[in-house]
Amino acid sequence: MQILVLNGPNLNLLGKREPSVYGAKSFEDFYVELGEKFPAIQLNYLQSNLEGDLVTSIQNLANKFDGIVLNAGGYTHTSVAIRDAISATNIPVIEVHISNVTNRESFRHQSYITPVCAGLIMGFGLESYTLGVQALCQLIQNKQQ
Amino acid sequence: MQILVLNGPNLNLLGKREPSVYGAKSFEDFYVELGEKFPAIQLNYLQSNLEGDLVTSIQNLANKFDGIVLNAGGYTHTSVAIRDAISATNIPVIEVHISNVTNRESFRHQSYITPVCAGLIMGFGLESYTLGVQALCQLIQNKQQ
Amino acid sequence: MQILVLNGPNLNLLGKREPSVYGAKSFEDFYVELGEKFPAIQLNYLQSNLEGDLVTSIQNLANKFDGIVLNAGGYTHTSVAIRDAISATNIPVIEVHISNVTNRESFRHQSYITPVCAGLIMGFGLESYTLGVQALCQLIQNKQQ
Amino acid sequence: MQILVLNGPNLNLLGKREPSVYGAKSFEDFYVELGEKFPAIQLNYLQSNLEGDLVTSIQNLANKFDGIVLNAGGYTHTSVAIRDAISATNIPVIEVHISNVTNRESFRHQSYITPVCAGLIMGFGLESYTLGVQALCQLIQNKQQ
Amino acid sequence: MQILVLNGPNLNLLGKREPSVYGAKSFEDFYVELGEKFPAIQLNYLQSNLEGDLVTSIQNLANKFDGIVLNAGGYTHTSVAIRDAISATNIPVIEVHISNVTNRESFRHQSYITPVCAGLIMGFGLESYTLGVQALCQLIQNKQQ
Amino acid sequence: MQILVLNGPNLNLLGKREPSVYGAKSFEDFYVELGEKFPAIQLNYLQSNLEGDLVTSIQNLANKFDGIVLNAGGYTHTSVAIRDAISATNIPVIEVHISNVTNRESFRHQSYITPVCAGLIMGFGLESYTLGVQALCQLIQNKQQ
Amino acid sequence: MQILVLNGPNLNLLGKREPSVYGAKSFEDFYVELGEKFPAIQLNYLQSNLEGDLVTSIQNLANKFDGIVLNAGGYTHTSVAIRDAISATNIPVIEVHISNVTNRESFRHQSYITPVCAGLIMGFGLESYTLGVQALCQLIQNKQQ
Amino acid sequence: MQILVLNGPNLNLLGKREPSVYGAKSFEDFYVELGEKFPAIQLNYLQSNLEGDLVTSIQNLANKFDGIVLNAGGYTHTSVAIRDAISATNIPVIEVHISNVTNRESFRHQSYITPVCAGLIMGFGLESYTLGVQALCQLIQNKQQ
Amino acid sequence: MQILVLNGPNLNLLGKREPSVYGAKSFEDFYVELGEKFPAIQLNYLQSNLEGDLVTSIQNLANKFDGIVLNAGGYTHTSVAIRDAISATNIPVIEVHISNVTNRESFRHQSYITPVCAGLIMGFGLESYTLGVQALCQLIQNKQQ
Amino acid sequence: MQILVLNGPNLNLLGKREPSVYGAKSFEDFYVELGEKFPAIQLNYLQSNLEGDLVTSIQNLANKFDGIVLNAGGYTHTSVAIRDAISATNIPVIEVHISNVTNRESFRHQSYITPVCAGLIMGFGLESYTLGVQALCQLIQNKQQ
Amino acid sequence: MQILVLNGPNLNLLGKREPSVYGAKSFEDFYVELGEKFPAIQLNYLQSNLEGDLVTSIQNLANKFDGIVLNAGGYTHTSVAIRDAISATNIPVIEVHISNVTNRESFRHQSYITPVCAGLIMGFGLESYTLGVQALCQLIQNKQQ
Amino acid sequence: MQILVLNGPNLNLLGKREPSVYGAKSFEDFYVELGEKFPAIQLNYLQSNLEGDLVTSIQNLANKFDGIVLNAGGYTHTSVAIRDAISATNIPVIEVHISNVTNRESFRHQSYITPVCAGLIMGFGLESYTLGVQALCQLIQNKQQ
Repeated sequence: MQILVLNGPNLNLLGKREPSVYGAKSFEDFYVELGEKFPAIQLNYLQSNLEGDLVTSIQNLANKFDGIVLNAGGYTHTSVAIRDAISATNIPVIEVHISNVTNRESFRHQSYITPVCAGLIMGFGLESYTLGVQALCQLIQNKQQ
Repeated sequence: MQILVLNGPNLNLLGKREPSVYGAKSFEDFYVELGEKFPAIQLNYLQSNLEGDLVTSIQNLANKFDGIVLNAGGYTHTSVAIRDAISATNIPVIEVHISNVTNRESFRHQSYITPVCAGLIMGFGLESYTLGVQALCQLIQNKQQ
Repeated sequence: MQILVLNGPNLNLLGKREPSVYGAKSFEDFYVELGEKFPAIQLNYLQSNLEGDLVTSIQNLANKFDGIVLNAGGYTHTSVAIRDAISATNIPVIEVHISNVTNRESFRHQSYITPVCAGLIMGFGLESYTLGVQALCQLIQNKQQ
Repeated sequence: MQILVLNGPNLNLLGKREPSVYGAKSFEDFYVELGEKFPAIQLNYLQSNLEGDLVTSIQNLANKFDGIVLNAGGYTHTSVAIRDAISATNIPVIEVHISNVTNRESFRHQSYITPVCAGLIMGFGLESYTLGVQALCQLIQNKQQ
Repeated sequence: MQILVLNGPNLNLLGKREPSVYGAKSFEDFYVELGEKFPAIQLNYLQSNLEGDLVTSIQNLANKFDGIVLNAGGYTHTSVAIRDAISATNIPVIEVHISNVTNRESFRHQSYITPVCAGLIMGFGLESYTLGVQALCQLIQNKQQ
Repeated sequence: MQILVLNGPNLNLLGKREPSVYGAKSFEDFYVELGEKFPAIQLNYLQSNLEGDLVTSIQNLANKFDGIVLNAGGYTHTSVAIRDAISATNIPVIEVHISNVTNRESFRHQSYITPVCAGLIMGFGLESYTLGVQALCQLIQNKQQ
Repeated sequence: MQILVLNGPNLNLLGKREPSVYGAKSFEDFYVELGEKFPAIQLNYLQSNLEGDLVTSIQNLANKFDGIVLNAGGYTHTSVAIRDAISATNIPVIEVHISNVTNRESFRHQSYITPVCAGLIMGFGLESYTLGVQALCQLIQNKQQ
Repeated sequence: MQILVLNGPNLNLLGKREPSVYGAKSFEDFYVELGEKFPAIQLNYLQSNLEGDLVTSIQNLANKFDGIVLNAGGYTHTSVAIRDAISATNIPVIEVHISNVTNRESFRHQSYITPVCAGLIMGFGLESYTLGVQALCQLIQNKQQ
Repeated sequence: MQILVLNGPNLNLLGKREPSVYGAKSFEDFYVELGEKFPAIQLNYLQSNLEGDLVTSIQNLANKFDGIVLNAGGYTHTSVAIRDAISATNIPVIEVHISNVTNRESFRHQSYITPVCAGLIMGFGLESYTLGVQALCQLIQNKQQ
Repeated sequence: MQILVLNGPNLNLLGKREPSVYGAKSFEDFYVELGEKFPAIQLNYLQSNLEGDLVTSIQNLANKFDGIVLNAGGYTHTSVAIRDAISATNIPVIEVHISNVTNRESFRHQSYITPVCAGLIMGFGLESYTLGVQALCQLIQNKQQ
Repeated sequence: MQILVLNGPNLNLLGKREPSVYGAKSFEDFYVELGEKFPAIQLNYLQSNLEGDLVTSIQNLANKFDGIVLNAGGYTHTSVAIRDAISATNIPVIEVHISNVTNRESFRHQSYITPVCAGLIMGFGLESYTLGVQALCQLIQNKQQ
Repeated sequence: MQILVLNGPNLNLLGKREPSVYGAKSFEDFYVELGEKFPAIQLNYLQSNLEGDLVTSIQNLANKFDGIVLNAGGYTHTSVAIRDAISATNIPVIEVHISNVTNRESFRHQSYITPVCAGLIMGFGLESYTLGVQALCQLIQNKQQ
């Protein structure tokens, strides 16, 4: 089983940006731990600040992976293009967020992406990714049966 | 570790109500499986159709449990009283939904409860509860350290 | 043929509450007359001020009755839980109102319940119930054919 | 007792237009049946696609009939002129709709006409007219007492 | 100088419709008085309940008159077609209303017609027409100078 | 008969401010002409840039005049205090505007004052005041009869 | 004189729930003090987390008390049923709140209950109840005169 | 192949009305040119200022033509009745506009008609009709294959 | 203890303005009674129709008084300047209203002032001021302890 | 004559993505056919998933082409940057869409781009491009005359 | 060159009012420093809490100064009258704010004044005024060239 | 002191794009003049049409510069990603605009970026940048003290 972890803009700053909100651990350090938790899964990680690159990644990698764990960062609230890329793919995409965005500015309460994702997990810090990978495994196994 | 699974109105109908949306398995059957997945945790299950009963359960049981996995059903979108009960408790509450509610009627897109919960998991069918219990374990263990 | 007449909050006050709006006849008196108009139908009457009790009644009684005439009172405008109970039942539910609610406060113009009911009758005083029972008979007979 | 059944635009297409929504019976055929159900009432039927003709009919016929059963079709949602004609008449007008319009496009959820009608009946197919005639009889008899 | 007084739907009912709001004098009686007040002006009067007829009247009569005093009745709030006809004419049109519509239902507060009229006079009962004719005289005389 | 012409903020600039919109004649020059048109009426003129002064004028002068022609300028759209002063007086107040404000910025389309005035006249340049005085005469004479 | 103090959901937690917002004193302790301040009045106290119980209390107790001091808690913002119960009673009801709710989440700025209450007192901590009892005494005495 | 070109209110004024916006050529002149461009198609042309006449034309002519090119003028933004007539027909209808309406008043940005038309062409002056006829040919040919 | 009673526009008309709404007693007469009820407090009374004067009074008098009972009249709904003056003062300000404003026009439902006041009392006629003075005493005494 | 066909995000998936909505033909295959239909025109084709690349293309290519046929995909509804690039160019841009977007999610009903384009063509499948090229030819020829 | 610095309500409190937001320096002290920074310019300073006084100052002083640096305080968000005075003047007016108002209450995000000012500077504490004077110099010099 | 001047989409067109709005001088020419005005500051200039490149520039350059003068062009109104990058940096960012955007389309009145910037300067043509650099110097110097 192969899973893509795809991060959007500013998530490369994790551990540096507003640690009181996002925690002090970098995503790279977390990603090593994530791999250790799922030894049977082949994980891959991509990050981009460019909306169009995220679109292209979803398009191109859909036939190389079994599912995507996606944190689209700020594009969550503004990108119809990423929504359309998810709609067009036929592997499951799970939306994750580190913080509980419903506690933040009102423009973060609306997501273009959630309605076309398989599910949503948010508020658990970096553990949202762990839960996302796990949920994806379950979904993929169910489909394969 | 003791965890309360708390279900709101109409969730007693699972397996009977609109199986194409909610699946054909009853919650009782699922609950047995859930217990087997977490042998180290003492799970408890309550369901009520009454908003005020859910308020009372959160109030009274908060000092008997380490956390709550809550699916408030239709009250998710209309109950300030349940929100206030969650705010007043000091154990973590995790909101779960079986379906991806952002794909349904627009009044289901607003939740009074999410902003006062630790996190949200939705769209994974009954597995949303499994992920909720797991997320809660992680949260409680982190707190205890 | 068995029909449930289900009344929500404050409808137990009929004849006492604001008679200029709701008339001076109590529901109990009217209910006797209603029974006489439909001698071939077995009518049953329930009233509750509790949202969750109305949910439970719809759930439990659906397999004992052929249809429900429902006046959900103030919950008409605020209850997703009752809407979900109606959606989950497989007998027809007809919404009735004594007054023409579009002439009253603007929050009464929105109903969570109408879209999941078979039909709506309002503005005819207590005769709205008579028309509701009659409409239900017709619906049930059509189904049985 | 004399009652006018007044139909607005496109209702001349009944039986032809979207039969899955509106049924396969023409209004003319139904109208014959309707007359048979109410042998003591003198029914009259008018249909027009013109908003202003409906206004004129309500104005001119009000002193020839005891009440009107009105399905204003698409003008229900856009016509202040028909609303004003109803307000100006002194016989009761009952609004009927074949389908449950709250299940359709959001612009059909608003009616200029309901607040000035005696009552509203919708969702029962052509039987909405039968119930409308019956409700009107009751209203007129009550007034005459 | 030739002036057209153009009335929309239900204004043929003046003196009959809701006399407490619109007064007890018929428009025909008032129109005789109006003519006597302006002996030097050739007045003409048209009324229609049909939106399209009002459009046609404005189109056709614009080159026969020096200005129009228009009370579009209920079409004031719903007719883009009449607005476009006024925009297309090159004689001045003055909007009048008998009652102060800002005291009535909120949908009467919006007018499609006012922005393309020369001016607006409302709230003076039938005297609104008298003031409208007078304002029009002034406008036409100013233009002719 | 005694009439007060009351002008709000910036109307002292007439003839100077944006002459393409408001014309090149000063209000003082116009006011002389206005007096000549109504020799039988005792006119009085007040202007203030202060909202509270307009309130005080309406309060104090109500028992010295038979009616008020009011152009509240920018306060038309923002002043509940002036509205309340008009409500509290028992002489008729007529709202006038020089330009057709529905053709300007959207915040000028809402008026706190119109619903409590006897009537509204707008769009006729300074002639709006002439029509306002005339309408007031008519109203006062009708009352005195 | 007999007065009912009626508390809604979560107000049983006073002194325990968010003491920085609601203070550290329990309602029971406060209630003893309240009784001492009004020795001539017979006070009674009820609390419920159930919306329908509050409806029933208002219905049943109205003929046993001279007035009600009501803090409906979270139901203030969501309950049409409680509003209808207050409308239907004929003893005065005074709405009180401990905190100044206009400083909190925007959904707390709207109250279904205030328009049907005699008056509103909020922001004075538990002293809001003291002021409420006092206001009620005054209202009842005025009525009795 | 037979195609109906159907024009709504005020489009009879083309060449006369606001030539800076709509051009100086009359529709009649253009229509001759249009026929010459499509010698193989039998074109027919109707215009009406009456909403109900447009409804009737769509109803009656649908079985005489293979498709309709429709410019509903001002009714585009206000007519549910025309929308319903288009929904009820089973030949393709193409909406055209001379100007780019998204550059004009905001009420012109909403169309009741577009969602039930096969397609929309706007902004190309009278050439919008030429493109409309051409698009219709293509659609009809595709259907016939 | 020194308390300022500060009244905004039109409150000088009390007893004269709409006595059915505001009562027939003048504020001056009431103020004498108010003083008698609180012999231990030094009361002072100011009224102004000018928004800016109310701002200046709050600024200048804050260091001469221990608290303010404020009825800002119509400025309640429109004045950010008065709100800012209250924010800037460090003595408690209590907002009072004679009528229950939530029963009146919708623009009276919004207050710029409530969120920066210590509390709100409304609906008790002139007794709202009595309750306001009493609430202020309590607040000041609590602070001094 | 040289024309640029410019496609935005996900349009590279045509023929692969949701063929029930967008058809089964790839854009590359269609593009060959398009070239054959317009042998006299030099067509060029660009596609990008990057908003900024589309901006740059419009900027750089404007002086190499006579016009642009643009389908901005998801950026239609979210990109002010592309709108500004179109405004800044001085060659005509025609917006095309494959589907009738007014039938899809409500966020697709708003376009930042339409008001600055010469015209809009939508709903004709890939033929929308054919009509777009044709409309562009006409526009360019008219300009050159 | 002569420049007017014009301050609105509560800005006389600078240094006293909420120093954590507005700083601890009084405007008078700052104003001395401002003068020293621009020795070649004749500065003048006015402050008023009265909306109408600000209107009058802008009207009267426009022909005595070359430009105005305006901080209208709370009137920024509520005053059409000040907006109209700025529109009517023909010297440039620059709007300044001490704090970044987009970080504060939502009603502060809307300004009636910005659209009629030459430019806006905000968020730099008292230095906003320094930048405002400098911007004004530049504007006036450009005009004079 | 090192300052980054960062320009968003289409600002590379300055001097070419709509010179009546943005002026005829290219940014490159202006930038030379800007450097001459601030000889003590090391300026750097970057422009990109790509949202993600602007995000990356803010991320990477924050530790090489003391502050940023940012004109995000069209992304001002649509980019949460740029907002998040500014929030995450710890050097001051000043937002500048050439034109007064509150005079343009309504979607330009909302900025995602202003609330997280130190301040805003707009409406002064290219001088907005000069004022921005100056404001930034002041801010940096204050911080360094």
